[in-house]
Amino acid sequence: MPVTFRAAVLRELNRPLAIETVEAPPLAAGQVLVKLAYSGVCHSQVMEARGGRGVDRYLPHMLGHEGSGVVVETGAGVTKVKTGDRVILGWIKGKGADAQGIRYKSGDGFINAGAVTTFNEYAVVAENRVTLLPQGLPMDVAVLFGCALPVGAGIVINIAKPAPGSTLAVFGLGGIGLSALMACKLFDCRQLIAVDVEPAKLAMARELGATATIDASQQDPVAAIRELTGGLGVDYAIESAGLVRVIEQAFDATRRFGGLCVFASHPRSGEKIALDPFELICGKRILGTWGGDANPDRDVDLLAGLFRAGKLPLASMFSRRYALDEINIALDDLEQRRSVRPLIEIDATLG
Amino acid sequence: MPVTFRAAVLRELNRPLAIETVEAPPLAAGQVLVKLAYSGVCHSQVMEARGGRGVDRYLPHMLGHEGSGVVVETGAGVTKVKTGDRVILGWIKGKGADAQGIRYKSGDGFINAGAVTTFNEYAVVAENRVTLLPQGLPMDVAVLFGCALPVGAGIVINIAKPAPGSTLAVFGLGGIGLSALMACKLFDCRQLIAVDVEPAKLAMARELGATATIDASQQDPVAAIRELTGGLGVDYAIESAGLVRVIEQAFDATRRFGGLCVFASHPRSGEKIALDPFELICGKRILGTWGGDANPDRDVDLLAGLFRAGKLPLASMFSRRYALDEINIALDDLEQRRSVRPLIEIDATLG
Ligand SMILES: [Zn+2]
Ligand SMILES: [Zn+2]
Repeated sequence: MPVTFRAAVLRELNRPLAIETVEAPPLAAGQVLVKLAYSGVCHSQVMEARGGRGVDRYLPHMLGHEGSGVVVETGAGVTKVKTGDRVILGWIKGKGADAQGIRYKSGDGFINAGAVTTFNEYAVVAENRVTLLPQGLPMDVAVLFGCALPVGAGIVINIAKPAPGSTLAVFGLGGIGLSALMACKLFDCRQLIAVDVEPAKLAMARELGATATIDASQQDPVAAIRELTGGLGVDYAIESAGLVRVIEQAFDATRRFGGLCVFASHPRSGEKIALDPFELICGKRILGTWGGDANPDRDVDLLAGLFRAGKLPLASMFSRRYALDEINIALDDLEQRRSVRPLIEIDATLG
Repeated sequence: MPVTFRAAVLRELNRPLAIETVEAPPLAAGQVLVKLAYSGVCHSQVMEARGGRGVDRYLPHMLGHEGSGVVVETGAGVTKVKTGDRVILGWIKGKGADAQGIRYKSGDGFINAGAVTTFNEYAVVAENRVTLLPQGLPMDVAVLFGCALPVGAGIVINIAKPAPGSTLAVFGLGGIGLSALMACKLFDCRQLIAVDVEPAKLAMARELGATATIDASQQDPVAAIRELTGGLGVDYAIESAGLVRVIEQAFDATRRFGGLCVFASHPRSGEKIALDPFELICGKRILGTWGGDANPDRDVDLLAGLFRAGKLPLASMFSRRYALDEINIALDDLEQRRSVRPLIEIDATLG
C-alpha cells in the first residue's frame, strides 16, 4: 500500500508553504524511502520560497535539504543502506545512485521534488543523498551534517587549510559561519574575527573562541579588521552571509599577496559582486564554493569524531524547535534572523 | 664627469612628455648605469601619462620599463653584470640589489625615476632590474623580454599550465596577448581562440596559430566562444586588453567547474569588475596577475631558447619604429591601437 503523509509544498513564490497530504511514488532503482525524524532549515529554502532564485519552473514542489531519519524501504540496487538504518539526509552528493525524477501525488495533481526533500514526514531520496548515521551522533544534531557543518567546516578544512599563525575572519554567523568558526578552532590561528549584525550571535562566537567580534551594524567591518591586523587585512576571509555587499567586504578585508576570500553565499539571482581588479593583480584571491568541497562519505565520520570529542558544540545552533506545521514560522524566523538554525521536529520518537 | 643625456619627462598628467637634458646622479651601491639601445612601450606608460593611475605624487618623473642596452658603469657591490655587458632592462624583479631612490638633475630641479626607466638615452637602474642578454637574441627583440613576453608567456607557462586538449581564449592582442598566444602554441591545445577589435591583429593571430578569431567590434565574443565550445565556454581565458568590460567578458567566456580566467590588465584607477557570484560557486575561477609569476633569472633564458628555435616570432610585434623624439607619437599610436608594440630606437648602433 502506498505511503501517504504530510508535506510542506511550495505552490507559488512568495506565498507560505502549504501543508498537504501527499502520496509517495513506488521506489525506482537507486532510491530510498526514509521516515524523517528532524529537518534543518537553511537560507537556501528561504531564497527558494521567496523567489530569490528567479523563475521557478518546478512549481509546485517540496523543499528542505538537510535532515535525519530511518530507512523504511530501499529500491532495486541500493547497497549503501538497508531498512531500519538511521541516516543523515543532505544535498551534497556522496556514493550511490543519483536516482532523481521524484514526483509525489497530491489530490489530482503531482508535486515535484529534488533528489532530497526534508520538510515532509517521509521522503523518497536518491541513494547518493543518504549517509549512515555515525555512532554517538544524536538525530537532531545530525541534520547539521547534511548541509551547514560539512560546508562550513569544509571551507576551512578542505579549501582554506589555514597555516599555523594565520589570521581569519568569518562573515555571517549562521549555520555555515558558526561551523566554519568551530573548524577554525581546530587550527592554530593567531586571530579569529567574527562579523555579524546580531549581538546574540557575536556572543555565541566569543563562546566558541573568536578572539574578536565586530558588529557590522555599528562599525565598518573592513576598517575594523584592518585595524585588528595592523593595516594588512586577514589571511583568510570566509563569507556565508548571503549578500553581495558582504562578499565584497570579505574580499576587501583580505590581505594582498596571497590572502584568500572564500564565500559560500548564493545571493539573489542577477546580483553581482564588484571587485577592484587591482586588488586581484596584487595577489588577493577569491573563490566561491558550493559545498565546501565536502564529500559526505569521507567527511561525516571525521566530523562526527570531532563532535564526540567535544570539539563541535553543535547543539548551540538550535535556538528554537518547531513542529512541521510551523514551517512558515521557522522560515520567517530564519529570514528575520531570530533563529540561527531552526530545527523542525517531525518525529522525535525516532531519535 | 657626470653623464648628461636626453630623456622623456612627464611633468604634468595628460600632457605630452618633454624631451629634456638631464644629468645622471653618481651611482649608489647596487645600481648600474646603462646606455640604452632600444625601448618598448606598453599600456602602462599610456595609463601613467594620461592620469589613469589617479594622483601622481612622483611628478616630474621619467618613464618606460622594458628596454635593452650596454652597461657603462656599475655601483658598489654589483655582481650580476659588468661594464660592457649587453643587458635587458625590465620592471620584474630578479636577483640583485633593489637599489631605488634614483633622481636625475634637470636645470635647477630634479626628476624622479623608478628602479628602471627606458625612455632615455642612459638610465641608472637597480641591479635586480637588469638581466644579461642571452646569446643569439637581437637587441631590438630583447626589449620584449623586459615585460610583454615574460608576462604573457608566464600567464600560460607559470599559471594556466593548460592540460593537453584544452580550449583557450586570448582577449586583447597587444604585446602580452600575442606573447600568451605564442606560448599557448607550446602546449597541445584543442582550440585557441583570439579576440580583438582590430582585423590586422586578428590576422596576425591566425598566422601565429589561432584556430579561430573573433572581432569583438562585430559580434559578442562571449556568445561566439560559447558557440565554438559547444555551449560550455573555454577551459582558460587570458585577458590583457586593459578594460574592465573585457575582463568581465573573459570571465563570462570561461567554463564552469574548473575553468580559469587569468587577467593581467591594470584598468583605470577606481574601475571595478562585476562578477556573478553564482558562477564562482559553480567552480569558475578568476585570478589577477601582475607579472605572470615571471622570474627573469629563470625565464629569460628559457624564452630565448624558444626564440632561437623559431617558436616565438617576436619581430612580428613591431609594426613601426620610432626615434626617442617621437615618443609622444608612439604613445598615441599605442593608445589608438595603430601599433601593437612601438619600438623606440635610442641607439641602434649598440645592437
Ligand atoms: Zn543548506
Ligand atoms: Zn609593460
